[in-house]
Amino acid sequence: MERHFDEQLTVLKQTLIRMSALSESMITDAIRVLCERDASAIPHIREHEEEVNRLQIEIDSLCMRLIALYQPTACDLRFILGAVKTNSDLERMADMAINICDKAERLLPESPLDPLATTSLPEMAALAGLMVKESLHAYVNRATDRARIVLLRDDQLDDMNRRITADLLALMQKDSGMIKRALDLLIVARNLERIGDHATNIAENAIFVVKGLDVRHHHER
Amino acid sequence: MERHFDEQLTVLKQTLIRMSALSESMITDAIRVLCERDASAIPHIREHEEEVNRLQIEIDSLCMRLIALYQPTACDLRFILGAVKTNSDLERMADMAINICDKAERLLPESPLDPLATTSLPEMAALAGLMVKESLHAYVNRATDRARIVLLRDDQLDDMNRRITADLLALMQKDSGMIKRALDLLIVARNLERIGDHATNIAENAIFVVKGLDVRHHHER
Repeated sequence: MERHFDEQLTVLKQTLIRMSALSESMITDAIRVLCERDASAIPHIREHEEEVNRLQIEIDSLCMRLIALYQPTACDLRFILGAVKTNSDLERMADMAINICDKAERLLPESPLDPLATTSLPEMAALAGLMVKESLHAYVNRATDRARIVLLRDDQLDDMNRRITADLLALMQKDSGMIKRALDLLIVARNLERIGDHATNIAENAIFVVKGLDVRHHHER
Repeated sequence: MERHFDEQLTVLKQTLIRMSALSESMITDAIRVLCERDASAIPHIREHEEEVNRLQIEIDSLCMRLIALYQPTACDLRFILGAVKTNSDLERMADMAINICDKAERLLPESPLDPLATTSLPEMAALAGLMVKESLHAYVNRATDRARIVLLRDDQLDDMNRRITADLLALMQKDSGMIKRALDLLIVARNLERIGDHATNIAENAIFVVKGLDVRHHHER
């Protein structure tokens, strides 16, 4: 019984890791489409979204089966309930990547706005992608120190978003021909910022699983 | 045992209803601050946020206790796992209301943009608020027909968001002095649209609880 439970728990972790890797690659690919005006990744992004959606349903059923069959308690139960929440966060991240991909597709015929396209947005996306990877790693390995790093990185990401928003606002005010394009990039930056929020949720779940400590709404940042 | 479980389940439902009513009133109040330039509701909104945060932690613990003590299966287990997810959605809605309130506070000294302030945004907020109420009602009463209505309303809300965004874009292009204010309203509309997404999640959870049917990613709209 114990052995079966551990095996199933390993499957759950592997499925979460697979889902997180997909979401992360969707973010990277969508930003490449946007910043390099390279449409070749779009079909992969759409395929990955379908797989994420399948995995989301699979993870929810797996969590339900684990609870119903093995009646886990304490730390294991917290891990599984946290996985239910983490699962939603990962799926929303993939949604954000799709939003970015949609904007990128629309912007393909237009010339990129430097230095946003060459520097600021790719940097912000790299940080968001790192947070996805680190938060999931913290979660499956129950590594609270890693989780706390994610909480700190989220402040950096928010700062980047504020800077990019200010730059875009200045651009719009200077040249009304830029407004539509700048607005799209502003939404992209907000999507990246929300990806960071979801990674933060996962990191908070990780701390809750290990310590039984609810750090939501009172981060020790 | 059975009786205790039912009592605890009733407490869970009441707490979810309380949390949903708070989120809904936060949305209504934040839009009033924004559209009527009436700052008097701001302290209530902030107090309600704190209560929502407390309730979020309470609901998670309650769900965990229910599972650990009573080992529910099938429909009851689905209800409790769905409550864990619904809890996250309700808390995010309150976050969106706080985002709107922050923008509203910043815009207090500036004159409102008609007809957005007088008509479009209040209408959109009223629909979003209705979706919050209806989705939670569908969830706690396991009422799938109500849940399906929420899924339909989300399409209406998305249309409203698209119309408001187009109006704001036109305004920005016409008068660069409007850009900053219009951008804030655009973010408000997006926050309302996301509230609708969270209500949709709750409605999908309701259908899953009753039918064991996962309607995510393939709505019968």
